[in-house]
Amino acid sequence: MEPTSPRAAAELLKSHDLHPSEVADFLEDRELREIVACLSDLDEQDAADVVEHLDLAIQRALVDVIPHGHMAKVIERMAPDVRADLIKELPDEVADGLLPLIAQAERQDIARLAAYEEDTAGSVMTTEYAVVNLDDTVAMAREELRRQAPGEETGYYVYVIDSGRRLIGIVSLRELLLARSDQHMEEIVDRDYVSINAEDDQDTLGDIFSRYELPSVPVTDEAGRLVGRITADDVIDVVEEEADEDIYHLGAAGRPIDYLRSSVLRIARERITWLLILVVTGLITSTLLQHYRGYLDQAVVLVIFIPLLMGSGGNAGSQTTAVIIRGLSTGEIEMHDVWRVVFKEMRVGLLVGLALGVCAAGRALLTHTNGGGGPVRLGLTVGLAMIATVTLAKTLGAVLPILFKKIHLDPALMSAPFISSIVDVVTVIGYFVLADLIYFPGSSPG
Amino acid sequence: MEPTSPRAAAELLKSHDLHPSEVADFLEDRELREIVACLSDLDEQDAADVVEHLDLAIQRALVDVIPHGHMAKVIERMAPDVRADLIKELPDEVADGLLPLIAQAERQDIARLAAYEEDTAGSVMTTEYAVVNLDDTVAMAREELRRQAPGEETGYYVYVIDSGRRLIGIVSLRELLLARSDQHMEEIVDRDYVSINAEDDQDTLGDIFSRYELPSVPVTDEAGRLVGRITADDVIDVVEEEADEDIYHLGAAGRPIDYLRSSVLRIARERITWLLILVVTGLITSTLLQHYRGYLDQAVVLVIFIPLLMGSGGNAGSQTTAVIIRGLSTGEIEMHDVWRVVFKEMRVGLLVGLALGVCAAGRALLTHTNGGGGPVRLGLTVGLAMIATVTLAKTLGAVLPILFKKIHLDPALMSAPFISSIVDVVTVIGYFVLADLIYFPGSSPG
Repeated sequence: MEPTSPRAAAELLKSHDLHPSEVADFLEDRELREIVACLSDLDEQDAADVVEHLDLAIQRALVDVIPHGHMAKVIERMAPDVRADLIKELPDEVADGLLPLIAQAERQDIARLAAYEEDTAGSVMTTEYAVVNLDDTVAMAREELRRQAPGEETGYYVYVIDSGRRLIGIVSLRELLLARSDQHMEEIVDRDYVSINAEDDQDTLGDIFSRYELPSVPVTDEAGRLVGRITADDVIDVVEEEADEDIYHLGAAGRPIDYLRSSVLRIARERITWLLILVVTGLITSTLLQHYRGYLDQAVVLVIFIPLLMGSGGNAGSQTTAVIIRGLSTGEIEMHDVWRVVFKEMRVGLLVGLALGVCAAGRALLTHTNGGGGPVRLGLTVGLAMIATVTLAKTLGAVLPILFKKIHLDPALMSAPFISSIVDVVTVIGYFVLADLIYFPGSSPG
Repeated sequence: MEPTSPRAAAELLKSHDLHPSEVADFLEDRELREIVACLSDLDEQDAADVVEHLDLAIQRALVDVIPHGHMAKVIERMAPDVRADLIKELPDEVADGLLPLIAQAERQDIARLAAYEEDTAGSVMTTEYAVVNLDDTVAMAREELRRQAPGEETGYYVYVIDSGRRLIGIVSLRELLLARSDQHMEEIVDRDYVSINAEDDQDTLGDIFSRYELPSVPVTDEAGRLVGRITADDVIDVVEEEADEDIYHLGAAGRPIDYLRSSVLRIARERITWLLILVVTGLITSTLLQHYRGYLDQAVVLVIFIPLLMGSGGNAGSQTTAVIIRGLSTGEIEMHDVWRVVFKEMRVGLLVGLALGVCAAGRALLTHTNGGGGPVRLGLTVGLAMIATVTLAKTLGAVLPILFKKIHLDPALMSAPFISSIVDVVTVIGYFVLADLIYFPGSSPG
C-alpha cells in the first residue's frame, strides 16, 4: 500500500497496514518538515520505530528540528544499537544538550554501546536480550522472562549468567517451554555455545553465523561477562555493507554512499580523487611513450598494438584483483596462503597469456610493416609482450592487495584501475625493450 | 583445536570439542579416502552433520564411494535443503539407484524441495519447522511441539495453520511460553506477519530479512499453504553468494569458484572466455588505429595521449559500473530510476571530465609537437577528447547494465572491462575526429 501523504502514512502505520520500515522508506524521499509532520502524528513508540529505519543523515537532521525534550523521549524508545549510532554522530554540544534529557538507564546504555569502535562486534550488537540466573528454577526463569521487556521480542535463546554476570550458557525457549517447572537452569543449560567478543572485528560475523547456523549469538567482554546480543538479521546488514565496500573498492568508486539521494557534486567529489591519482600514473605512461618517440617515428606500426596490450593486461589484472579482494574480505584467502595464491595466479597468467599472445601475434602477422623487421618479427614482439603483460598483471593483481593487507594498509587501496595503471607503465617499457631486441635487431632507434 | 588426523577429528566431534562445520573444514583439504575413514567412525547422525557442511562437489564424490545403503541413511539425517541440493546434483542413474533406499517421508521431502528452481526462495528454504492448528489450545500446542522433531531446533516461531494447511499466522515461542494453558491459538496468533512465496527470487531475501529484522520467515505456495521456512543465517549465505557474483562480474572474472581448491587449468578456463571476447574488441581498436595511420605518420605526438585517454575512460566507466551493478543487485536502483541515474552519471561525467581534461590539456601544452598545429591546438584536442571520453564512459557505464537488465539479459554481462573496451573504440574515433578538426585544420592527413 503506497501512502498519499506523510499524514496518511502515519494513519497506515497506526492501523498496522504499513510496517515502520515502509513508512520510513516513503518518508526518505520527502522534505524534512513533512517527515516531522508525520512523526508528530505518532506516539513516541511509533515515532521511534519509524526514526530507527530512517537514514542516519535524516535522523541527524531531525535532532536539529525536533525539540530536545520530545526527541529524548523518542530516542529512549529506539533500538539500543541504532540510537547509539545516532548519538555517536552528533556534535558534542548537541549531544551534551540532549543526553541529560534521556532517562538514566537508557543514557547509560547509550554510553556503553557508543564506546565500541566502529567495525567491532560491539558496535553491531543490541542490549535487548533475556537473561536468567544459573540457580533459578525453570518456573523462576519463566517469571523472569515475563518481567523483562514485556512487549519485546528477546530472541530464541535465554542467556544464563552467574552472580558475576559471566555468561555460563544458553537455553532455547523451546527447551524452557518443554522443561518441568521444578527443574533448575543448571540442569538444562547448554554450556557448549558459540559467543563473540565485543572487540572482535565485525567482518568475522558473517562466517560465524553461516558456519554455526545461528539466529543470534551472545556477546561478551574480555572478562566473559555478557554485554549484548547480535542477531542474524543485523549480520545481513554487515555482510551487505562489506560487499558494497568490496565492489566500490574494486571499481575505484570511492566510499559507498546513498547514490540516488546524493547530489551530482557529492558523487563527483567521491570519485575524483581516484581519477586524479590514476591520471598521474597515466601521465607517467605518456611520458614513457614520449621517451620512445624515436621508435615510433621509425615504425608507427608499433602503436597499433599498444592499446591491445594495455587493455589485455588491465583485463587480466582486473579478474585477479576481483578474486583476491573478495577472498581476503570473506576470509577465503588468508595471509598464509600468499605464496600459493601468487604462484597460482602466475601460472594462470602464463596459460591465458599464451592464448592471448597467439591471437595478438596472429593479428600482427597480417599487418603491413614499415621500418624495422617484417611481420614475423612484429608478431614475435607483440606475442611475447602479451604473454609478459598478462602474466605480470595477474601476478601484481594478486601480490599487491595481499601485500597491502600484510603491511596493514587497506587492501581496498588496490583497485583494478590502479593495478592496471601500474601494469601499463611496465607494459610500455617491456614492449619497447622487446621491440629493440626483436623488431629492430642491431639498429636501435632509441 | 586442530585435529591431527581424520580419525582424531571424529573423536573430537564425538566429545563435542569440535563443531561439525569445523570437522568439515578440516576434511576438505584431505583425500577422499581419509574423509570416508573419518565418516565411518561416526554414527549416521554425526556423519550427516559433517557431510552437510562439506562442499557440494565432495558430497557428490562421497555418493560414488560410500555404499548406497549407508549413504541413504546419512542422507535421511541431513538438513532438508542441503540434501535436496545434493540429489539435484546427481546424474539421473545415480539418483535412481539411491532414492529407493531412502525412507519414504524423506524421499518425498527431497522431491518437493528439489522441484524448486535454483535462485528461488523455495530452493533456499528448509522443511524443518514447528506447526500447530488454529483450533488447538496452548497446552495442545506445547504437546505438539514436544512431539515434533524432539531433538531439533525448530526456530523462534511456531506456524499456525488451518485444516487446509493454509498459513493463518505465527506465534513466538515466547508468547507460547507466557500464555495460559487453556488459551486457544486463535486468541494469541499474530496474523500480521511477513511471509515469502516459494517462487520468489532469492535476491529479494536480504532486503526482507534486514527490513523487518526477522530471525526466520515462513514460505508459502501460490495457494497460501505453508511449505517451508527460511532462516536469517541461510540468507547470509545467499547475500554473500550474490555479492561474490557482483564482484566477479564487475571484474569479468567468470563465475565464482572455490578458488584455493581449484586447479590452475580450471581457473584459466573460467577466465579465458572474457579475455578472448575483450581481445576481439581490442583488435577492433587496433584496426581503427591502423586506419588512422596517416595521422600518426604525420604527428606521432598524438600517440602519447591515447593510453591516457583510454585509461581515464576505463577508470571513469569502471566507477559507474561498480555503483550500478551493485545498486541493481541490492535493489537500491530500480528500473523506474533509469533516466534519473543516466542523467546523473552524465553530469558527474562532465564535471570530472572537465577536471581531467584540464590536467591532460596542461600536459599537452608542455609537449614538443611536430606536424599539424602547435601545443595549444594539441592541448585543445586532448582536453576536449578527455571530456568527451569520460562523459561517454560514465553514461555508457550506467546505460548498458540497466539496458541489459531491462531486456532480461543478465546485467552481469556488462563488466567494467567490457564497457571500457567499448569506450576505447569510441575514444579512438572521437580523438582523431577532434584532431582532424583542431590539430590538422584544413589539411586532413586521413
